[in-house]
Amino acid sequence: MGVYDITERDQTKGHYGYAMPILCNPTKITHHLGITYPIIQAGMVWVSGAKLAAASSEAGCLGVLGAGSLTGELLSQHIHKVQKLTKKPFAVNFPIMYHGTEQQVNLALQMGVKIFIMSAGSPKVYTKRIQQTGAQVWHVTSSPLLAKKCEDAGVDGVIVEGFEAGGHNGRDELTTLVLVPQVKKAVNLPVVAAGGIASGEQMLAAMALGADGVQIGSRFATTVESSAHEKFKQAIVAAAPSDTHLMMKKIAPVRLLKNHFYQQVLSLEQSNGSTEELLALLGKGRAKAGMHEGDLTEGELEIGQVSGMISDIPTVAELVTQIISQYEQVRTHLTTLKLD
Amino acid sequence: MGVYDITERDQTKGHYGYAMPILCNPTKITHHLGITYPIIQAGMVWVSGAKLAAASSEAGCLGVLGAGSLTGELLSQHIHKVQKLTKKPFAVNFPIMYHGTEQQVNLALQMGVKIFIMSAGSPKVYTKRIQQTGAQVWHVTSSPLLAKKCEDAGVDGVIVEGFEAGGHNGRDELTTLVLVPQVKKAVNLPVVAAGGIASGEQMLAAMALGADGVQIGSRFATTVESSAHEKFKQAIVAAAPSDTHLMMKKIAPVRLLKNHFYQQVLSLEQSNGSTEELLALLGKGRAKAGMHEGDLTEGELEIGQVSGMISDIPTVAELVTQIISQYEQVRTHLTTLKLD
Repeated sequence: MGVYDITERDQTKGHYGYAMPILCNPTKITHHLGITYPIIQAGMVWVSGAKLAAASSEAGCLGVLGAGSLTGELLSQHIHKVQKLTKKPFAVNFPIMYHGTEQQVNLALQMGVKIFIMSAGSPKVYTKRIQQTGAQVWHVTSSPLLAKKCEDAGVDGVIVEGFEAGGHNGRDELTTLVLVPQVKKAVNLPVVAAGGIASGEQMLAAMALGADGVQIGSRFATTVESSAHEKFKQAIVAAAPSDTHLMMKKIAPVRLLKNHFYQQVLSLEQSNGSTEELLALLGKGRAKAGMHEGDLTEGELEIGQVSGMISDIPTVAELVTQIISQYEQVRTHLTTLKLD
Repeated sequence: MGVYDITERDQTKGHYGYAMPILCNPTKITHHLGITYPIIQAGMVWVSGAKLAAASSEAGCLGVLGAGSLTGELLSQHIHKVQKLTKKPFAVNFPIMYHGTEQQVNLALQMGVKIFIMSAGSPKVYTKRIQQTGAQVWHVTSSPLLAKKCEDAGVDGVIVEGFEAGGHNGRDELTTLVLVPQVKKAVNLPVVAAGGIASGEQMLAAMALGADGVQIGSRFATTVESSAHEKFKQAIVAAAPSDTHLMMKKIAPVRLLKNHFYQQVLSLEQSNGSTEELLALLGKGRAKAGMHEGDLTEGELEIGQVSGMISDIPTVAELVTQIISQYEQVRTHLTTLKLD
């Protein structure tokens, strides 16, 4: 390659040019997880409690509890509540780097949780241990290289999140459109696409790229059953297409709504604020304050770029019906679009 | 909205939630432009000369000359050459903000160019004037709001570029997956999706989102007929998924390969370099040096994020055949994936 200085050599890049497209197989998701539709309702801090998870499972998706904000007694309370509200499969999402994850994982195993979605950390930490109990482990990742590491660690499947996703993102800024085909080529695992999916046409688009299923976050966050604060839901509904931004790359990239707190971060970043200054500004509790308690000014409002497409607050059942209907309309239409 | 401080109110956001998906109509592209496939080969500086444009048109797409780098006599020479090599429709792309665009547009009109693709500037500047001669005007844009302005200016169609696109990008960082459905809802015009499309499955995904056609850049840049330097083509072939980045947002956001020049820009940006310092570092002629003359170290190598998926250098004819074949395989497969 001569003087071309590349920062990363991705060993997964093969002869892609003339490759057959890798076709999706939704049964890899529906059969493997025991659900009706190849849709996972994303585990999100402050938003994904028992009501949302149970409603999502009842509607035929995989409901997911976001354990990152279910500290202390809350996790067992919410797991118990989901188990009362639905007999259908559900999962719990654990951000690995958070404090107390080990105890939370043990608790969930004791309570009979069968599907674990691990994120924000290495797939080597918990995968085998959880699988030895007979439970499944899916891992959230953001690049083909990291997906390969997940496969090496033995996960049941990967959830690949594009640049559009809300909350904490990977550093490569790969978009869902570009990421999914490359991950499908890199691993021989079920692949779920996440980031930027809020409608049936986007779900179908992800599956055209080869995704076996989709994970939907912001759209589920803006439902009746979501435990997001009503003001936060309204802010998402009001959001214009460009109202989110990926910030705080010095600490960890996070996508959030452009509110007053965002403006403060932006000013600090534009004046080359240090990591310490950024951490001090972030402080503690801003995500809870914004997303769960409705402080739209000082809160950290983590949500996806697709917010610009969200303009209502349906029930989960209404939403899933709508998504499947949109998916079917576009899928049927595609049968008329032969090109050769 | 209370204290929620939003930077932009997008009047195009309507009641999206329960909307019928807006279905694509490829004939809006093929009939309007007089081509076989709903594919535009992007006009790119230093890469899209007469050979590439003519080959793309002969292969059934819309070939496009990139006038931004065809200064002086070059533009008339290349237009003349395309007209000799093909009788099929072709277009010329003019970045409006470049020096000398007015003379170039007049020259193209005199030489009988019938399809103009305008970018990097306001659609109000040239649209009506060109259309009065009987030629078409398409405009490259990057947000639903800007697409609406294009419609108000009377363009024939819009090409909407996502965050993944190579070269100069819009400031909103909207990805193709999130951008296309919103633009389809905002305007009643033919919509062409661009950014992150290099394969038939990505083309089908864009059409599932509602795009009537696609514009493909980086993938065409890496063909035999492209006037990119051979070393640049090899660098794209070698590029890993994360080897491009959106830089120079203080001046104008541009996506480029991570080479030595990129490292210098990064260092300057990370130490909060001023706009003046960035402009001085950029200097003049770096894009030509890199993309056309093969200086991979100091050149500015503008290319799309999809480079990670490009691993060969086919002829245009081979490439188009492959894309259509991939498209058909996935389309046929999706017709079997009923979900309700």
